Amino acid sequence: MFCAVVCVCVATSSINSLTEKQISGCLSVFELLLAGMNGGGPKKLVDLLEDPLPGVGTYEDFNTIDWVREKSKDRDRHREITNKSRQSTVALLRSLSDAFSGWLLMLLVGLMAGALAGGIDIAAHWLTDLKGGVCLIGFWFNHEHCCWTSNETTFQERDRCPQWQSWAELIVGNSEGAFAYIVNYLMYIFWALLFAFLAVILVRAFAPYACGSGIPEIKTILSGFIIRGYLGKWTLITKTITLVLAVSSGLSLGKEGPLVHVACCCANILCHLFTKYRKNEAKRREVLSAAAAVGVSVAFGAPIGGVLFSLEEVSYYFPLKTLWRSFFAALVAAFTLRSINPFGNSRLVLFYVEFHAPWHLIELAPFILLGIFGGLWGALFIRANIAWCRRRKTTRLGHYPVIEVLVVAALTALIAYPNSYTRMSGSELISELFNDCSLLDSSQLCGYKQVSNSLADRPAGEGLYTALWQLALALIFKMLITVITFGMKVPSGLFIPSMAVGAIAGRLLGVGMEQLAYYNHDWLIFRGWCSPGADCITPGLYAMVGAAACLGGVTRMTVSLVVIMFELTGGLEYIVPLMAATMTSKWVADAFGREGIYEAHIRLNGYPFLEAKEEFEHSSLAVDVMRPRRGDPALAVLTQDSMTVEEVEVTTHYSGFPVVVSQESQRLVGFVLRRDLLISIDNARKRQDGVVSTSQVVFTEHAPTQPPEAPPPLRLRGIMDLSPFTVTDHTPMDITVDIFRKLGLRQCLVTHNGRLLGIITKKDILKHMAQIANRDPDSILFN
Amino acid sequence: MFCAVVCVCVATSSINSLTEKQISGCLSVFELLLAGMNGGGPKKLVDLLEDPLPGVGTYEDFNTIDWVREKSKDRDRHREITNKSRQSTVALLRSLSDAFSGWLLMLLVGLMAGALAGGIDIAAHWLTDLKGGVCLIGFWFNHEHCCWTSNETTFQERDRCPQWQSWAELIVGNSEGAFAYIVNYLMYIFWALLFAFLAVILVRAFAPYACGSGIPEIKTILSGFIIRGYLGKWTLITKTITLVLAVSSGLSLGKEGPLVHVACCCANILCHLFTKYRKNEAKRREVLSAAAAVGVSVAFGAPIGGVLFSLEEVSYYFPLKTLWRSFFAALVAAFTLRSINPFGNSRLVLFYVEFHAPWHLIELAPFILLGIFGGLWGALFIRANIAWCRRRKTTRLGHYPVIEVLVVAALTALIAYPNSYTRMSGSELISELFNDCSLLDSSQLCGYKQVSNSLADRPAGEGLYTALWQLALALIFKMLITVITFGMKVPSGLFIPSMAVGAIAGRLLGVGMEQLAYYNHDWLIFRGWCSPGADCITPGLYAMVGAAACLGGVTRMTVSLVVIMFELTGGLEYIVPLMAATMTSKWVADAFGREGIYEAHIRLNGYPFLEAKEEFEHSSLAVDVMRPRRGDPALAVLTQDSMTVEEVEVTTHYSGFPVVVSQESQRLVGFVLRRDLLISIDNARKRQDGVVSTSQVVFTEHAPTQPPEAPPPLRLRGIMDLSPFTVTDHTPMDITVDIFRKLGLRQCLVTHNGRLLGIITKKDILKHMAQIANRDPDSILFN
Repeated sequence: MFCAVVCVCVATSSINSLTEKQISGCLSVFELLLAGMNGGGPKKLVDLLEDPLPGVGTYEDFNTIDWVREKSKDRDRHREITNKSRQSTVALLRSLSDAFSGWLLMLLVGLMAGALAGGIDIAAHWLTDLKGGVCLIGFWFNHEHCCWTSNETTFQERDRCPQWQSWAELIVGNSEGAFAYIVNYLMYIFWALLFAFLAVILVRAFAPYACGSGIPEIKTILSGFIIRGYLGKWTLITKTITLVLAVSSGLSLGKEGPLVHVACCCANILCHLFTKYRKNEAKRREVLSAAAAVGVSVAFGAPIGGVLFSLEEVSYYFPLKTLWRSFFAALVAAFTLRSINPFGNSRLVLFYVEFHAPWHLIELAPFILLGIFGGLWGALFIRANIAWCRRRKTTRLGHYPVIEVLVVAALTALIAYPNSYTRMSGSELISELFNDCSLLDSSQLCGYKQVSNSLADRPAGEGLYTALWQLALALIFKMLITVITFGMKVPSGLFIPSMAVGAIAGRLLGVGMEQLAYYNHDWLIFRGWCSPGADCITPGLYAMVGAAACLGGVTRMTVSLVVIMFELTGGLEYIVPLMAATMTSKWVADAFGREGIYEAHIRLNGYPFLEAKEEFEHSSLAVDVMRPRRGDPALAVLTQDSMTVEEVEVTTHYSGFPVVVSQESQRLVGFVLRRDLLISIDNARKRQDGVVSTSQVVFTEHAPTQPPEAPPPLRLRGIMDLSPFTVTDHTPMDITVDIFRKLGLRQCLVTHNGRLLGIITKKDILKHMAQIANRDPDSILFN
Repeated sequence: MFCAVVCVCVATSSINSLTEKQISGCLSVFELLLAGMNGGGPKKLVDLLEDPLPGVGTYEDFNTIDWVREKSKDRDRHREITNKSRQSTVALLRSLSDAFSGWLLMLLVGLMAGALAGGIDIAAHWLTDLKGGVCLIGFWFNHEHCCWTSNETTFQERDRCPQWQSWAELIVGNSEGAFAYIVNYLMYIFWALLFAFLAVILVRAFAPYACGSGIPEIKTILSGFIIRGYLGKWTLITKTITLVLAVSSGLSLGKEGPLVHVACCCANILCHLFTKYRKNEAKRREVLSAAAAVGVSVAFGAPIGGVLFSLEEVSYYFPLKTLWRSFFAALVAAFTLRSINPFGNSRLVLFYVEFHAPWHLIELAPFILLGIFGGLWGALFIRANIAWCRRRKTTRLGHYPVIEVLVVAALTALIAYPNSYTRMSGSELISELFNDCSLLDSSQLCGYKQVSNSLADRPAGEGLYTALWQLALALIFKMLITVITFGMKVPSGLFIPSMAVGAIAGRLLGVGMEQLAYYNHDWLIFRGWCSPGADCITPGLYAMVGAAACLGGVTRMTVSLVVIMFELTGGLEYIVPLMAATMTSKWVADAFGREGIYEAHIRLNGYPFLEAKEEFEHSSLAVDVMRPRRGDPALAVLTQDSMTVEEVEVTTHYSGFPVVVSQESQRLVGFVLRRDLLISIDNARKRQDGVVSTSQVVFTEHAPTQPPEAPPPLRLRGIMDLSPFTVTDHTPMDITVDIFRKLGLRQCLVTHNGRLLGIITKKDILKHMAQIANRDPDSILFN
């Protein structure tokens, strides 16, 4: 029951506009329910040392998990199962099923995510085609399927068949002329607006978490943050449906990023089938890391690239076991998708490319140029997009998300329709741009003058010049519209729009190089490798390099990006150009700011994310960062055997307390979380006889002798962490940050010569880092 | 000068037989020299707080580095450069060159390793051919090159040309008949013995570290251990030459593993060009991790597989920056190797495979069978090989390494020559077994009866039956001889022999399946997909799957193995069979023991290696592992301001000492290493006036007030680690082990309620783990 309440709580408050007040409001409902539940139970004496209470050891929403504790819990569980397995055959079987449950889960995640991705592909394809016309033999056929059944079409004109009618044909019975064009135009805008409206309304109504690409939040969740409902079933259903609608609406967004979110939702939901993963936040995050790999695997048909993406870009804790399992899940998903065959060509990859000519060393210069373009565009895009999103957050713009989406969708449709390169979907555009012109190719981009019957470089013809103009306009349009599209309250991925920008730029440069080489064979730079009649420059390769460069500039991916691109072409041949462009792009973009778009959005939202890639450069010490600061009141501590229940309850302002031997010695014994403390006291008051406000709270192993008339002491050693992490006050912060990152700590205590001095939490570190970087330390919102 | 002495010290004592006595002998020479050097300098007053002494902060041979300290040192260096770069343009340029030195180093490593690998390939090819005959137009041509210049040969017989003469032809003028066969046989054995003799003699004379595959030692070094000279220039030169000789001698070993060692030597030597890497053990290890990737990249022509190999198998600390750089270096190396073109076919990969038929789901059954075979063979091989190596270490066998090598080489040559599949080199054999029979293939393995002019499954002919018999014998021979070959005192890799065993088994099974399907088309399992006239079963694919399974069983590689194999075929199509076999093989092998061959050899040699992959399962606490144990004398500590130089020098039995406030309070202040302490005291006695045995050693910030007649105190706060790691006595050992692994600690102090209680070193942990696993804790040799 309280689960549903939390869901509703979360669902009614969008993550971007979530204030701390709302959160605590939600939490108080949650706690009330919890208390109610506990109150309903019979009063019995529970030994707190033996059986952990329900609630103890769990986390509140918007809090950070303690990796060490979670992993230790899992090892305890595993040890217990292993020990039991020696006793009986049933236990042995249970231990075996436990060991293989991880693999089973991976299999299920792969199957489910692959199936969903296939469904999304098919649905989006159909809806996108619906904007242009309808199939007479059945409205559920998309354009291609509709014409498959037709025998009247030749191979050349297979996309024109009488069964498929454009809206103009259907409504006014005429497909030519200005009037028909206007009818089609208006129908296109109508459908685009309808899809966009449905998408944003569904997101608002059912799962506000379904908007955006989801990757920033998944990165934060994988680093140990808790956002309940972010990966829940409502989010999954809503995101799947609205993703199809958003993509079909023609907005400048892709489905690749959101597919990662969809795969993670699948994984999270399937985790509930296995106790091992349901009950352990750290283990569940291992599965989510694998799911991120699955997402990219189905998005691009690149399982190895997907695993490396998860490793490089989103994961925080990625043990080798997870690497192997991720790979398995990514493969299962890729093959599931292939057996669904949404592209109708039995290809695993989204953009299948085959180039015929090798590249020449001199071409590295334009490739590096593309890298520079990609880097500049990436840096610029991040700045512009963040500025726009900040404006949305702070001004009244943010109050009208539906109108915003409708306006942007109308604008996109209005401008996009007349230009055939913006009218087609992003992935179609990229496919077209990557394509190496064959002799029979009828596409406008292959509108060369036919000089001989070979694939050699040819002079550009009328068609190509038109295409170049249209592409140049499409480039400007895509660059501008993507800035305001990413971040709207619909599911929106960045991969395809970024790649499209780069692919257009690359194709333009490629055709330019090609024509330059054709008309200037005698130039020094072309001599020797690009003689007349040779097929020396492949504009499609330039498009591909440009796409990689722009995607790299925006996301700052490196290895994974190159490997994804490598899997598209399937040959090591073209890795060097891709690598040169990606490296340049990263360096150029990093010169303007080291954050990728996902990190920038994480910071914008104030999530407590400790970047694992960046080194901590400042020379501060632990004593400079810890609380209490100089002049502040002393650290709130509990003593191990001299405080009463009342005194303990008073000091509940902080989220955790060190336990010391005595106030004078300040020698550390352990650490207690407020949540655990409150639940335990509450429980003891209800179920344990004689626990009153004056009862002594005891954290020692043996209760101290007390006067006989005193109430029995409340023993809470069971909820105390006996191995809190400590650093000395002189520990440099770079080491401290390293410890936090590598061990996944929530907090760490600071000592001086063996005495407790203060505490450093993850939030303190992030605030300190923000301060060093001259940012507002209060931009870090959560714990 | 002392550098050379250390080199000689190391060179005269083989690593396997190194006793602690020898090490300390070497070290005393080293220390003597160091002391002499210090003594030679002018006596001046050095402020120990400001300038670190030479020697302070470095490590002795066969010791473990402190990752935290090294990384912190590097960050300090980086911070200094960054701060300076704001002051002048020169400093800015220096900062830029510092930032790019990593990339430059990677480029150099890639170029050098690629070039060396090319040289090794060419030389080994030539020497291998020399065993069979000689080229008359120039003895430096190998068989293939020799016949390239000949115009008399057709395509079919291109390996037979008059210029190339077998030894029988050259000596007795006749290539036919029993006598000629015997002459060739004897010459084959002669060359094999000569090469083997040269290899073992050179290794003994110049660099005992050059023997073996080197991967276990590199794993240990990457985990933070120091073995001086293991990656030095003598090792590099010797290993390169002897590797060629050992491979050419026809012993059952490969060059792929040793290439990793060669690449790491290159990297280590090139590190000396850059202060950043020369002076920092942690940074150098990042480069070595990348070099391991380079080694595999040039060995198989698989850059992505190489990077994953480094990540999965050998590396310990692998930050994402290293991933990207490794990838770059691996690519550079692969392309360098390709431009040298040692295989003469412009192929990047060692075994280029192209299969024509897809596989069917039912075939997963034989693939899994191959996986089981691979797992069993892997487990068996590891046991047998370790038993044999242990015997070599403990009995008199180990005293005669040269004779051992000669006997094994003679035995190998004697048995291998008559069987053409054992006579050819391992990589040739694997190429042949992977090969998919085309119609014109003249190889014996393709000796099918020609029934129609298609690639459909055909009945086996005479030739194939002979080949099968020979292969079966070759399988038994390879399985036995590899066990005694791996671990001899010559460079020897395991990849190729393991893959050969698996490939033979796979090919046998594949041909068996093919014939079964051919003669029993009507069986239920073949119905539908393997009808008459269909090309349904590819024996080459079975060979490949078998090779992967056996290699997986021996090394327990997973992702990297599959990716390497994927790069060989270039298609995702065959990943599923490979993955099924590799997974099965790993599970089966793990059931017999969780260690791969490299971990087993690490344990055999007693290196202090803390495996990152295995979980610590036992439920012990830090207090159970720390020293002093119950009943032992108390921990040797230094007090911060109440001990004299004399007292400090007495307690120099341990390698490090905690510094406490006072003996009574046992409140921890810091940690001092014995080595740093001795160097500093020694230096102070020589250069600082008034430092005598009764001088007080002071670790506090301000010297305490002393009686006026007392000698001036020796202030040593500068060498004290002010941020020693501590855990509480109740910390579970699984968490402690995790901390050691993730942070790369050397030691950790144990406290109870804020008081110092004991110390845990890496060696203590390893001993404890050995004890739990019922092994001899004294098998861990080094610190």
